[in-house]
Amino acid sequence: MSQRLRWGLVGGGEGSQIGDAHRIAARIDGLIDLSAAALDIDPERGRAYARDLGVAPDRAYGTWQEMLEGERSRPDRIELVTVATPNATHFEIANEFLRNGFHVFCEKPLTMTVEDANALLKTAEANDRLLAVNFGYSGYPMVREARAMVARGDLGRIRLAVAEFAHGFHADAADADNPRVRWRYDPNQAGVSSVVADCGIHAMHMIGFVTGQHLEAVSAHFASLVGDRILEDDAALNLRYSSGTLGRLWTSAVAVGQMHGLNFRIFGEKGGLSWHQEAPNQLFWTPLSQPTVVIERGHPEASDAARDATRITIGHTEGMLVAFANLYRDLHRAISAGEQGERDLALSLLPMGAAGAEMVAAVDAAARSTKDNGAWVELPKTSL
Amino acid sequence: MSQRLRWGLVGGGEGSQIGDAHRIAARIDGLIDLSAAALDIDPERGRAYARDLGVAPDRAYGTWQEMLEGERSRPDRIELVTVATPNATHFEIANEFLRNGFHVFCEKPLTMTVEDANALLKTAEANDRLLAVNFGYSGYPMVREARAMVARGDLGRIRLAVAEFAHGFHADAADADNPRVRWRYDPNQAGVSSVVADCGIHAMHMIGFVTGQHLEAVSAHFASLVGDRILEDDAALNLRYSSGTLGRLWTSAVAVGQMHGLNFRIFGEKGGLSWHQEAPNQLFWTPLSQPTVVIERGHPEASDAARDATRITIGHTEGMLVAFANLYRDLHRAISAGEQGERDLALSLLPMGAAGAEMVAAVDAAARSTKDNGAWVELPKTSL
Amino acid sequence: MSQRLRWGLVGGGEGSQIGDAHRIAARIDGLIDLSAAALDIDPERGRAYARDLGVAPDRAYGTWQEMLEGERSRPDRIELVTVATPNATHFEIANEFLRNGFHVFCEKPLTMTVEDANALLKTAEANDRLLAVNFGYSGYPMVREARAMVARGDLGRIRLAVAEFAHGFHADAADADNPRVRWRYDPNQAGVSSVVADCGIHAMHMIGFVTGQHLEAVSAHFASLVGDRILEDDAALNLRYSSGTLGRLWTSAVAVGQMHGLNFRIFGEKGGLSWHQEAPNQLFWTPLSQPTVVIERGHPEASDAARDATRITIGHTEGMLVAFANLYRDLHRAISAGEQGERDLALSLLPMGAAGAEMVAAVDAAARSTKDNGAWVELPKTSL
Amino acid sequence: MSQRLRWGLVGGGEGSQIGDAHRIAARIDGLIDLSAAALDIDPERGRAYARDLGVAPDRAYGTWQEMLEGERSRPDRIELVTVATPNATHFEIANEFLRNGFHVFCEKPLTMTVEDANALLKTAEANDRLLAVNFGYSGYPMVREARAMVARGDLGRIRLAVAEFAHGFHADAADADNPRVRWRYDPNQAGVSSVVADCGIHAMHMIGFVTGQHLEAVSAHFASLVGDRILEDDAALNLRYSSGTLGRLWTSAVAVGQMHGLNFRIFGEKGGLSWHQEAPNQLFWTPLSQPTVVIERGHPEASDAARDATRITIGHTEGMLVAFANLYRDLHRAISAGEQGERDLALSLLPMGAAGAEMVAAVDAAARSTKDNGAWVELPKTSL
Repeated sequence: MSQRLRWGLVGGGEGSQIGDAHRIAARIDGLIDLSAAALDIDPERGRAYARDLGVAPDRAYGTWQEMLEGERSRPDRIELVTVATPNATHFEIANEFLRNGFHVFCEKPLTMTVEDANALLKTAEANDRLLAVNFGYSGYPMVREARAMVARGDLGRIRLAVAEFAHGFHADAADADNPRVRWRYDPNQAGVSSVVADCGIHAMHMIGFVTGQHLEAVSAHFASLVGDRILEDDAALNLRYSSGTLGRLWTSAVAVGQMHGLNFRIFGEKGGLSWHQEAPNQLFWTPLSQPTVVIERGHPEASDAARDATRITIGHTEGMLVAFANLYRDLHRAISAGEQGERDLALSLLPMGAAGAEMVAAVDAAARSTKDNGAWVELPKTSL
Repeated sequence: MSQRLRWGLVGGGEGSQIGDAHRIAARIDGLIDLSAAALDIDPERGRAYARDLGVAPDRAYGTWQEMLEGERSRPDRIELVTVATPNATHFEIANEFLRNGFHVFCEKPLTMTVEDANALLKTAEANDRLLAVNFGYSGYPMVREARAMVARGDLGRIRLAVAEFAHGFHADAADADNPRVRWRYDPNQAGVSSVVADCGIHAMHMIGFVTGQHLEAVSAHFASLVGDRILEDDAALNLRYSSGTLGRLWTSAVAVGQMHGLNFRIFGEKGGLSWHQEAPNQLFWTPLSQPTVVIERGHPEASDAARDATRITIGHTEGMLVAFANLYRDLHRAISAGEQGERDLALSLLPMGAAGAEMVAAVDAAARSTKDNGAWVELPKTSL
Repeated sequence: MSQRLRWGLVGGGEGSQIGDAHRIAARIDGLIDLSAAALDIDPERGRAYARDLGVAPDRAYGTWQEMLEGERSRPDRIELVTVATPNATHFEIANEFLRNGFHVFCEKPLTMTVEDANALLKTAEANDRLLAVNFGYSGYPMVREARAMVARGDLGRIRLAVAEFAHGFHADAADADNPRVRWRYDPNQAGVSSVVADCGIHAMHMIGFVTGQHLEAVSAHFASLVGDRILEDDAALNLRYSSGTLGRLWTSAVAVGQMHGLNFRIFGEKGGLSWHQEAPNQLFWTPLSQPTVVIERGHPEASDAARDATRITIGHTEGMLVAFANLYRDLHRAISAGEQGERDLALSLLPMGAAGAEMVAAVDAAARSTKDNGAWVELPKTSL
Repeated sequence: MSQRLRWGLVGGGEGSQIGDAHRIAARIDGLIDLSAAALDIDPERGRAYARDLGVAPDRAYGTWQEMLEGERSRPDRIELVTVATPNATHFEIANEFLRNGFHVFCEKPLTMTVEDANALLKTAEANDRLLAVNFGYSGYPMVREARAMVARGDLGRIRLAVAEFAHGFHADAADADNPRVRWRYDPNQAGVSSVVADCGIHAMHMIGFVTGQHLEAVSAHFASLVGDRILEDDAALNLRYSSGTLGRLWTSAVAVGQMHGLNFRIFGEKGGLSWHQEAPNQLFWTPLSQPTVVIERGHPEASDAARDATRITIGHTEGMLVAFANLYRDLHRAISAGEQGERDLALSLLPMGAAGAEMVAAVDAAARSTKDNGAWVELPKTSL
């Protein structure tokens, strides 16, 4: 029998979308137990909901500090903690859990500042703990297929990557006082960026994940198109990657009619790929000068990574929650003793802290580029 | 805390697609424990795999008979058993578990004969047990939205329902000796029908589920298009429903290029609906003389049933495994003590034994119609 | 300079959709002159409109009889006449023009009865005149590509052809007294069939055109789903073709939400094809056990017939009027002295009278099958 | 009878795609006669081909200068001349014809420099002649519908317009010496820009056409991604429009897998629109907080402009050549005496010289912005 992973969750209380998504994703493979939780800013509500979810009463904590305290001394202490709290708290919580020897799976953005992100990477390294970031769209089988195709050279050198993450759910000017929307455009709460930090980074991460390249420099134009928002609700970025690939990115929260809007198109010397999150079971592949081929999830000749990420046969549909479950299964494989091949594959696919830190740096660079009239801003060199 | 459901699984051993699908679906909501299992025709392999899956050793059974024997006397005995064994064994296994007071969730087709199906309904009724059938596509939120729209009269009287379930995965003549394909076209193993019993019934069930009508008569044309198959690999059916709706159905296993192929279109006096399993997050709705509207899963004005079946926000994707999880959640709600409203909703949506029996009768009628040159064959009246 | 074709038009007066379509199609290549016309049931209105269209006053006729009389003795008489009058008049007009040595291009259905269709074929043959029928969808380049692919064996033996032509524009019960709709369901005006004769025959012709086979027998189920219509507004047909291919066809006028609805899917031993009239620039091709390929109109490796039918480069769009122009260009090539290769290609592609007669026989057989409870009805053997 | 327009064509010789497109578009409505032509750089070949096309021998000219000379003194001289020659010759030819009192329809880009474009506008104005530019995609009915919807305020204030024109047909590095490709990336032949001047301007024009706004400033990033090209084969632009709308544009010639790639999305306070050239018969409209509606070409409630541009009923397809014919019909209406309403509509829809000059200025500004590291460059104020 596979060893089960003892898992704790901070944040994601009752009514939280992201909390349900994490819990469903963690349950799908039956490899992970929700052993401890501190789910809510209201301690009592958090404890009650954790008990409802089946967490033992003594591990249904009121705060993350209680949870850290309670867990670190237990012999059956949790191995992995997910941090799904407001962005500004990610750093402190993740840092403390890492320092105390827990593996951490953190929501994006990893931190609010580049400094914090780098500090977190150091804490993880110093404590030899795994730090992963929830760029959950990387769990889709056909995204992993695209990455495998690029890696084995099907596209030749990658010239250009064009990605979007543009939705329309902050387009209503009447939402100015809606608290669920307002904080996102307030620099005191959201930091230097709104839609780039919220959505754009998924699209940027996707380019890096699929092409296997690091982001080196950014030129950006931010715009605030609704009301008197301070932070941007729309942005266009040009991106320079480590192997010379050019990136183009558009992200928006005012694109009325777009329900989600994450997609990427990758263009190489020998062909092009296209994928859309809203129809995730197909990958479109066009070899140079040849017709487009529709690669279906579940196709028998898919890459190892794509087949491994596939749970149901071709023609049926898999969606976001199963994609997300692939990250939790990767976490299980990376942490629990298991087959070396599975562990290596998991570690090669999981979005690690370094990718999270790169994205924090990219957001920061984009905000600075915007202030400098779109000038290119180099990302700091990282040693990781 | 919600009461957890103690669940047993017969069939669905290691490497079985359907077994994984049931287990994932049952796990998604964290409401169901796999407490007992008899997974494999090979007792030892079945026991070992059950233990791997976390079933207690004394409830990891070698055969369904052992499981029945072991469970019926336990105080913590399973409440629900899923039957996912070869079709010809459904009747006996389901019947015995029902007779011993277990609720049963049976794979389709419910039984091999109309007589067996009716007998099973009687057993369920006599023992006051729930008998449900895995017409799992009915768990998709937008299918439930379609049903709700029809029920509240958006389409007016339904004139016509056109459904397909046509794939191309039995089109290779070289598969004549492939054991995974061959048995399906052998009447000794598959009964009176192949693709109608395997795929067509999902499409027929879908029409009944969405329109809320019963099937009364069938006119069918079966064809065997590959090699010397005895049973049909392609069929067209005309269907007459209880409120006068006409149905048209095409089902096939030789439609090369179709990856799955389940879809329906419903046409009423006041508008038309269209849904495709391969893009399940959208429902297309055309009011008479007006443009088509794209109803997205997760839309805030969706019906109660659709919103309840939705787990992730609009624009993200949900797939088959989450649809299937909705059936398991309905089973939990129907069986466990819970809110009356949820229980009623679950019972109204779950595909019950009567629907399963209707589909068995429909397959039988279609086979007889084919032999009678396409003449209309009435389905037997049922009292359920 | 290419020899221009002198062309006459009967029917298609001011405000008639079909008249404009014929005139645009005939103009597109600049090879055809509208030299004579009898456009309207109202002679004066017809003459005036013909003059507006640039027809010389002495050739702007009031009736087709005048036109026949006027043209047959002129040295510069028209070579080709298009018959675009109400269905019940096709036979007499076409027959008279053929008898007097004019080539005829007739709207579909060719005639109201099988006898008339056969008589027309004989007249054409006896007078050595070309008789073609406007199955205009056969002019689409990707339809011709599909035909070429079947002909060169890409699909192997064709097992199954599934076609639809189902729209929703006669779904409004309030149209019962709308004269544009009413006549279509009145047997005194429309004959034995409504939607099959109007739309279904296009889909049937398409199967024959693409597969190169003749229709041999039909089993049909007609339904009248709106109000008290006598003739069918919905039908399902099973079809048996000369080389053993099975056909399935659904046609409807009550399919609310479908804007046009003509499509076909062809399934052979070695692969499957799919094409939809509403997205006519793509043909989907799936070789057995391989991914689907999107063949774009304008692809450099398309067949001769498809490339010849293509007027604008890949990625741009071509629509119905250009498809229809291909038939007029074929008529020009078939009639005017030109290159033998072009002439042969045109004659191989033009829907000829025999195909028109086959479709009339198919409609008749379908109506008879419906009356005989769906029994198979053989089409009469033709000698053409 | 409508007065026919006497038309001359310069360029577009045998084998030229654009020549065929102009001729087909001009023929479609039967309102325009090709009365004079100078089709080829090789005078003899040009004369021969013009005669083949039915031009009278004395008006089948060898050069545009001959044509200008021959036509200007004729009583039946041409009224309109189309200039479809290499870009660098547009200015001189158009200028001379305008100076001599001919209306001009010029291929895009209007000229190679901003100075020439402005000079041409002055010539047209001074001679009271119509100068139009072939931004042919503006002839699509659903593009005109989008423009009408914006104009009547359906979208409220337009915040953002996102457009693309990105294809993959210059992605083959092996084409370095292909003369059909090479000149496009050579500044001596192509000027300051390649793909922006060739494709991007269509997308920019589309934004202006649909939103009714003028372009005021540009920030651009050009890239040369294949081989050692000097001019750009990929570009991203940010655009500032006269009423405060922000534009985002991506254009490319290396996007392998994209067959054409022109599309736009317009986002306003009250809703969003989306249109793709490759599926031009549908316009997607999403009112704020409501589901997306599919507006079909031919819908009875379409705007006057869209209905007028529509030639065939809903559900059938119209393509680029018919869209282009709408521009020729507008030219006919604008030049020939006709109904005032039609004339006004035509003049409001035709892409006029001022729009052509704005696009030349935009390309120039984009090239300068690129050299200035993406800084915003204002377009010169025009008085037109």
